[in-house]
Amino acid sequence: MDRYHALSDVTMTTLLERLEELLDGIGSDNFEVDYHSGVLTLNLGSNGTYVINKQPPNKQIWLSSPVSGPRRYDYVPATDDWRYSRDGEGFGLLMERELSDILGHEVKLGLEHVSETVE
Amino acid sequence: MDRYHALSDVTMTTLLERLEELLDGIGSDNFEVDYHSGVLTLNLGSNGTYVINKQPPNKQIWLSSPVSGPRRYDYVPATDDWRYSRDGEGFGLLMERELSDILGHEVKLGLEHVSETVE
Repeated sequence: MDRYHALSDVTMTTLLERLEELLDGIGSDNFEVDYHSGVLTLNLGSNGTYVINKQPPNKQIWLSSPVSGPRRYDYVPATDDWRYSRDGEGFGLLMERELSDILGHEVKLGLEHVSETVE
Repeated sequence: MDRYHALSDVTMTTLLERLEELLDGIGSDNFEVDYHSGVLTLNLGSNGTYVINKQPPNKQIWLSSPVSGPRRYDYVPATDDWRYSRDGEGFGLLMERELSDILGHEVKLGLEHVSETVE
């Protein structure tokens, strides 16, 4: 369980930092990102709201996307990232694709190699 | 859209108030409820985290339950509450059932007759 918290915390804080940088660069008053008690909210105004939260009982990260709906991610040691079991796609890749579409430029979130940033 | 916001805001704030009362009555340091920018988080410690958020582009309320997973609710005028289209169950009823199970006593949230509390 400690390992789950370490890996998920790194992912959540990395994501928060990248999203804050991203929104700073855009400078829209309608967009905001916020992280409280394990739940990250990315409000993109008329594009809807992303919610990403830790779900410790399942050792998962859960995503609610206004574009693609809900997904649950498990940490996969072989790829060292969070994957959706039904299609094997990484959490970072899906988020990058959707945010790139919404924002109209390529977005990189740096959510690969999760364990390398855990002590 | 104004009507959506009025109805969903009443539901979210009613839910927040009831959950705050409920957690005050329990007095557990592991449980917390929090509402920021349209996203309500109910952290129930080892039972997991509920996330309920407004999704304005769809005029829906989205639920992520650690017990039953994700559901999307639409406001239904005929019943004056938020319903899940696949099974027709009300949002309040599902939340009451799951929270009653988790907490071991009957929980009432008062999420019926949504429009009556909207000016």
